[in-house]
Amino acid sequence: MTPFKLTDELLAEIELLIESRKDTALKSLMEEIHYADIAEIANDLSEDSATYLIKLLNSDKTSDVLIELDDDVREAILNNMSSKEIAGELDELDTDDAADIIGELPQEIVEEVISEIEDREHARDIVDLLRYHENSAGGLMAKELVKVNENWNVLTCVKEMRAQAENVTRVHSIYVVDDDDKLKGRLSLKDLLTTSTKSPIKDIYIPKVDRVNVNEKPEEVAKIMSKYDLEAIPVVDEIGRLVGRITIDDIVDVIKEEAEKDYQLAAGISQDVEADDSIWELTRARLPWLFLGLMGGIGAAAIMGGFEEMISKHAILFFFTPLIAAMAGNVGVQSSAIIVQGLANDDLKGSISNRLIKEMLLAALNGIILAMVLLLFTWFWKGNFPAAVAISISLVVVIVVAGIIGTFIPLFLNKRGIDPAIATGPFITTSNDIFGILIYFWIAKVILGI
Amino acid sequence: MTPFKLTDELLAEIELLIESRKDTALKSLMEEIHYADIAEIANDLSEDSATYLIKLLNSDKTSDVLIELDDDVREAILNNMSSKEIAGELDELDTDDAADIIGELPQEIVEEVISEIEDREHARDIVDLLRYHENSAGGLMAKELVKVNENWNVLTCVKEMRAQAENVTRVHSIYVVDDDDKLKGRLSLKDLLTTSTKSPIKDIYIPKVDRVNVNEKPEEVAKIMSKYDLEAIPVVDEIGRLVGRITIDDIVDVIKEEAEKDYQLAAGISQDVEADDSIWELTRARLPWLFLGLMGGIGAAAIMGGFEEMISKHAILFFFTPLIAAMAGNVGVQSSAIIVQGLANDDLKGSISNRLIKEMLLAALNGIILAMVLLLFTWFWKGNFPAAVAISISLVVVIVVAGIIGTFIPLFLNKRGIDPAIATGPFITTSNDIFGILIYFWIAKVILGI
Repeated sequence: MTPFKLTDELLAEIELLIESRKDTALKSLMEEIHYADIAEIANDLSEDSATYLIKLLNSDKTSDVLIELDDDVREAILNNMSSKEIAGELDELDTDDAADIIGELPQEIVEEVISEIEDREHARDIVDLLRYHENSAGGLMAKELVKVNENWNVLTCVKEMRAQAENVTRVHSIYVVDDDDKLKGRLSLKDLLTTSTKSPIKDIYIPKVDRVNVNEKPEEVAKIMSKYDLEAIPVVDEIGRLVGRITIDDIVDVIKEEAEKDYQLAAGISQDVEADDSIWELTRARLPWLFLGLMGGIGAAAIMGGFEEMISKHAILFFFTPLIAAMAGNVGVQSSAIIVQGLANDDLKGSISNRLIKEMLLAALNGIILAMVLLLFTWFWKGNFPAAVAISISLVVVIVVAGIIGTFIPLFLNKRGIDPAIATGPFITTSNDIFGILIYFWIAKVILGI
Repeated sequence: MTPFKLTDELLAEIELLIESRKDTALKSLMEEIHYADIAEIANDLSEDSATYLIKLLNSDKTSDVLIELDDDVREAILNNMSSKEIAGELDELDTDDAADIIGELPQEIVEEVISEIEDREHARDIVDLLRYHENSAGGLMAKELVKVNENWNVLTCVKEMRAQAENVTRVHSIYVVDDDDKLKGRLSLKDLLTTSTKSPIKDIYIPKVDRVNVNEKPEEVAKIMSKYDLEAIPVVDEIGRLVGRITIDDIVDVIKEEAEKDYQLAAGISQDVEADDSIWELTRARLPWLFLGLMGGIGAAAIMGGFEEMISKHAILFFFTPLIAAMAGNVGVQSSAIIVQGLANDDLKGSISNRLIKEMLLAALNGIILAMVLLLFTWFWKGNFPAAVAISISLVVVIVVAGIIGTFIPLFLNKRGIDPAIATGPFITTSNDIFGILIYFWIAKVILGI
């Protein structure tokens, strides 16, 4: 299979079919295309064309496409659908996806949409899910799962399972609960099939089963599932009752979103934006960090203004401020990135002071190597040996301080319960610029005795 | 379940048990701990203790732990095992994991280890996998899968499936092949169970099945599986024969590694390192980028040296070089990060020139807003209006140029088949520093007429 690639030609062809209302040709073309790819197409069409295309699909494809659409496109399409039509799509979807869509609907139509859902048990499950916070295991889980009572025997169990499995796309595990619905363990399909039909489930289930609490953070669930290679995990409430199940495909999305968010924060982009968003959205995501950088630059200028009398004697010092600032920024970003990643992977051990000592040694080693190169260059360039020494010594000190700041800030934020990823990128660069320049001129002043 | 957390106390307790050779206590403690957590423990023990601990475990746990260990710890432990012992572990592992371990063994013992594997079919499968490049679908896939011939009937099929499923931990799909082993489609378990036992498979299989070519890049496989929410995908060779299967847990690892690599590149860390690596390893990953930054800074100093005569008249210009350099760097990183992410997610549409125009407009908008703030500050600070105007106009131009460079470089690298992620971080910052300062002094010279 060559993966589907949305070409400009295909898009133009589809636009044309829609405009000329060639429904039959359009339908048979869509037959061949996976719903995730249809969503990709619809994301690139005009609002009207996308709505037209999606209304043309048969219903279980429509609902799958809806879930895959970009938020704004989905909103536009749902705006053009009646409550009954929306309910019809929700009927086709798993409870977690249906709840996500309801969460995006305008408040005033939510009740109406829910009342139009035909399968009332499905509707109840969806309403249950609405209660959980988006940023929790409860907000990720689906109600679709296969569970059996520990007091049943194998025969009852198999019968019940068949009925339940109808609604579950993929059966990963059969969960065992007690009369209070508390999760007791899981059942292997093999044991079920090889045991006498009269055996009580109690005697054959596996009492050990990984689980997460309904309030657990999605990132934690992702860590657990990827560490233990789980494809599904049951979710329990505060008193241990089985309330849902999270599958690996949702976790893959969590992992990707987390990674994108951290990457964007490191690059100084504060909201979830894409290259195709509007200039206005991109400005809102980028300008605040640039403004921070501007303030940092103004601060640096003010500091340098305080050393103005040095200019007449050692103009060369001023030529190296961009170098000092850049190195302080680079080292700060490097050390903070390593700490942020270590925190995210839970593999930082040892105390904060040990970390700081290690980073100091590392920064000093790198700093000394770089300073020697710089010393030779500056000395030969202007023949001003004292200034060359001052610049090189400053570089070592600045790099060490930058490394310490870069190590300390994310550890500190993490201790305070703040996402350490915000400490990477412009934040660390800007603060290191200022510290770096301040240290630089101060050391130069001491060494050169001005 | 509260996720397992490796505390210093637990580690100390285990160290003590190992040193005092309390095997029974150690064994019963390990019984309770998941293999992925035992690997985490072993990673933090001394080499000798880790080897001792792992040799103490029962064999199927040992093999699972081995796979989860850090590369260097695994290498140390395997060094302490005989070929026969290693072969014993490989017997327990899935073919993909076994092949990965063999790939890490010293060449001179590979043959011996393979010859010691008891299950000869397993050994053949492992040897088959060794032929594929690590960085391909073939390098990721396992041989364990359930496949049936299209010419069988349901009864034969069910019998054969039972035998095959013995070796497969999780059956995701039943694949249908023809007499030449070419992948024809897949079979739903439901259809299999609800059809007469005499029906030929040919009549009931689903002919449409996603697949990847054995030479496909892991990142592409990850994109396909996550886009289409697949938990497993069959791998075919150049003539369509079914040769293996990739499961979602391996793909989760690929996604995480990719994200970490991009994040590290953006932060100026060129090799896969962790906070706990040695100072030497960390230096090797960080120093090259710092050296690049140093060269950039020296370049910037040389440029400024060329404008030395300006210092006497407009020292203020020199105070703002860090600001100009920082803003050029920040904008460059922002725009390159958005492009790199868009390329990674395959959602960049339209031509390069459209992208560049959009980024120009965006950068100009941001630049003008920031320049107005800067103009007011510099004017009030030193009362030098011409210099304030020169600095502010330069800022707008520098931001626009930085945005264009940040947009163009990753697009250009991508066209050339080079990973665009290397264009983020120090690379873009350094080149933008130099361009920014050059543009800045040049514009100032024109406006101030020096």
